[in-house]
Amino acid sequence: MNHKKRVIIVGGGFGGLSAAKALGGSEAEVVLIDRSNHHLFQPLLYQVATAALSPADIAAPTRALLARYTNVSVLMDEVTGLDAAGKKIKTANCGSMSFDYLVLATGAEYSFFGNDHWRAHAPTLKSLEDALRIRSRLLEAFERAEREQDPVEIRRLLTFVVVGGGPTGVEMAGAIAELAKTALKRDFRRVGAGDLRIILIEAAGGVLSAFPQELSEYSAQALRAHGVEVMLQTKVSGIDKEGILTDGGRIRSANVVWAAGIQARPAAQWLKADAARNKAVRVYADCSVPGHPDIYAIGDVSSFEPTPECPLPGIAPVAKQQGRYVGKAIRARIAGRGYPAAFRYYNWGSMAVIGRSSAVADFGWLRLKGWNAWLAWSMVHLLLLIDFRSKVSVYVNWAWSWFTHRRGARLLTSPTSSDVAATFEGETKEVNA
Amino acid sequence: MNHKKRVIIVGGGFGGLSAAKALGGSEAEVVLIDRSNHHLFQPLLYQVATAALSPADIAAPTRALLARYTNVSVLMDEVTGLDAAGKKIKTANCGSMSFDYLVLATGAEYSFFGNDHWRAHAPTLKSLEDALRIRSRLLEAFERAEREQDPVEIRRLLTFVVVGGGPTGVEMAGAIAELAKTALKRDFRRVGAGDLRIILIEAAGGVLSAFPQELSEYSAQALRAHGVEVMLQTKVSGIDKEGILTDGGRIRSANVVWAAGIQARPAAQWLKADAARNKAVRVYADCSVPGHPDIYAIGDVSSFEPTPECPLPGIAPVAKQQGRYVGKAIRARIAGRGYPAAFRYYNWGSMAVIGRSSAVADFGWLRLKGWNAWLAWSMVHLLLLIDFRSKVSVYVNWAWSWFTHRRGARLLTSPTSSDVAATFEGETKEVNA
Repeated sequence: MNHKKRVIIVGGGFGGLSAAKALGGSEAEVVLIDRSNHHLFQPLLYQVATAALSPADIAAPTRALLARYTNVSVLMDEVTGLDAAGKKIKTANCGSMSFDYLVLATGAEYSFFGNDHWRAHAPTLKSLEDALRIRSRLLEAFERAEREQDPVEIRRLLTFVVVGGGPTGVEMAGAIAELAKTALKRDFRRVGAGDLRIILIEAAGGVLSAFPQELSEYSAQALRAHGVEVMLQTKVSGIDKEGILTDGGRIRSANVVWAAGIQARPAAQWLKADAARNKAVRVYADCSVPGHPDIYAIGDVSSFEPTPECPLPGIAPVAKQQGRYVGKAIRARIAGRGYPAAFRYYNWGSMAVIGRSSAVADFGWLRLKGWNAWLAWSMVHLLLLIDFRSKVSVYVNWAWSWFTHRRGARLLTSPTSSDVAATFEGETKEVNA
Repeated sequence: MNHKKRVIIVGGGFGGLSAAKALGGSEAEVVLIDRSNHHLFQPLLYQVATAALSPADIAAPTRALLARYTNVSVLMDEVTGLDAAGKKIKTANCGSMSFDYLVLATGAEYSFFGNDHWRAHAPTLKSLEDALRIRSRLLEAFERAEREQDPVEIRRLLTFVVVGGGPTGVEMAGAIAELAKTALKRDFRRVGAGDLRIILIEAAGGVLSAFPQELSEYSAQALRAHGVEVMLQTKVSGIDKEGILTDGGRIRSANVVWAAGIQARPAAQWLKADAARNKAVRVYADCSVPGHPDIYAIGDVSSFEPTPECPLPGIAPVAKQQGRYVGKAIRARIAGRGYPAAFRYYNWGSMAVIGRSSAVADFGWLRLKGWNAWLAWSMVHLLLLIDFRSKVSVYVNWAWSWFTHRRGARLLTSPTSSDVAATFEGETKEVNA
């Protein structure tokens, strides 16, 4: 009998998880490594950040999701480097591990375009910890405004700025507006509606620029109708404790959220490979890395460029489909059935939510906006949610806050910063600000 | 028209909240001050610590709970001192505030009997942050055991010690056993059942010593049946990074939870008043502080001693009933209807849960154990849960984990330490270890 082949998957986001599932029950010994213990349903992360959902509603332990596959084990550890020639990865806690096949699915993170000192004043939204930190800041701003006497400081505390008009930015701005103008306003005695400002800043000429122009324009209108000031063609030149500096002037704000640039995590460096835009690893049509036929890169960490001017977008369906494809490809190769045909992406369409009963959806053959798009979005996301429990709980929470305008998860606890490798759904790579 | 009387309530636990509600709609201007923004349903906190429930299931924003009372405002701040003669309190962020009536409802915290250096190695369970920290430690221990090679270290990582055989200690030990032996065991590939140890240490001769002996003995048996080693008449003499030292020897453990001594928060010092055992403020039969007829102390921070040898227990029903009583008393005095009759506690009984389908309940006229007690406990706690949303969500979670033996909230995030003033339900003051 042959030596059992070992497949190492780095990252437990949509890509890594679907690769692990596709390899479940195979002859290979599969090890999935992630820094966090949970798989995150990132498309709803903004709802945790705005106190509509609890962390457990949109996350599930990776082990539990893979428990049924006895050939797959999960390791909570951080990969720190790669010896591609020697076919070994280095980890922070478990030393070196050798592999026969490697799947890199480490995802992307936010980039501050060289201004990393902005990070301290402008949290991003990538992990559960990020979401809890943003939630704490939003809720704390209201608490501080309530006990503040100085009207200038009250306005600063109640000015919320989101940078980046991609899906995350639009969803955050819409959700903050809803949280601020309904759920919180009536609970605070001194906070007046006139003190509240929610601002969305975008460098390009429109929000949701990956959508058709008709939907992009509708989104900006709908945001304004929800009480968000949409500032287009506005560039950010500074962020500090006091607020944000743009080419249109200074905005005093205690609550800036960064949802602008996206860049791949450092897999290209490990490979000493030629990186695409945003530091992503360029891959062949079978998702393998040039020069390393046993190393695959999928999802946001990779740049799949069937036609170089039009790489696949950084969204969850791409990562999921690539994960399944690569899992099957490795199975076929281990079984000696040779290399499969090139990866092909099936585009199901994209959606973004603006606020209560308002969204946009582009299925190619059908474009929806407003209530219809919102209903489609709700149904698709319920169906996508991973396990039964999340579905029921999320449904209860949504129904509750939809009917009552109240938020259940408005709790101030104190998380600290950390990151999770994962990919996006319903989210194009945003390059703006 | 007279100057509007101001009532300040310090603490948003069961006592403070029920006092605020009793004063809702009155002529008084009521300010409730708490360090946290939420009211916590403490009796279920151990379920957050053992990943069965999410924080939002057992907590609700204090503002939302009091939103309907327009004469009540909520301030998130910390009270740092008291000028009883000048009728002023000092706060950390809002300076001094004067009052006509003051209700002290700051609750109790865990005491390490002078060994405060144990705290770093033995978290307590009082706030949401505490619960999230314990949960992180429990889950992390399993993750670390999974990647560990040394069998001695694996045993240390999988040895869980709870100090204190009161309701919190018993509930924690039972819940850890359930979490470890069912939900987690099947998800980990290398962790064997033989490596797991759950130990409950109690200085007295039995657990749940506030219950009748029959129920106390049953509880120890039931814990053992659930896989918990119950060590009675065992004293703790040291806790450090490696584990715990008792008069029965050394136990190597990476997971010690402290559920032993309880002491009142520092209100007696503020008042320069004669403190009872556990630093609690002694109060008269109308819950007022001797020498200060306009200052009341209720719940765990007070010692109500109609007969000095038998003070009321530190449980939520006492705090709730005292809060309602004091609220009504202040209303009557403001309206010029004079002082009410002395406070009388109506004892509804007490309960504690041991594990899946196993509990004890003492209603005085009726004692239950096992399945019947567990059913009674479940129903009472569902009814007690504060708002509709919590009820539905908790019910879904419970039903889910009861039928599947799985836990939904098994997420490793990184909270930092903090505290909340609140009181206990179903929990007697534990003095042991």
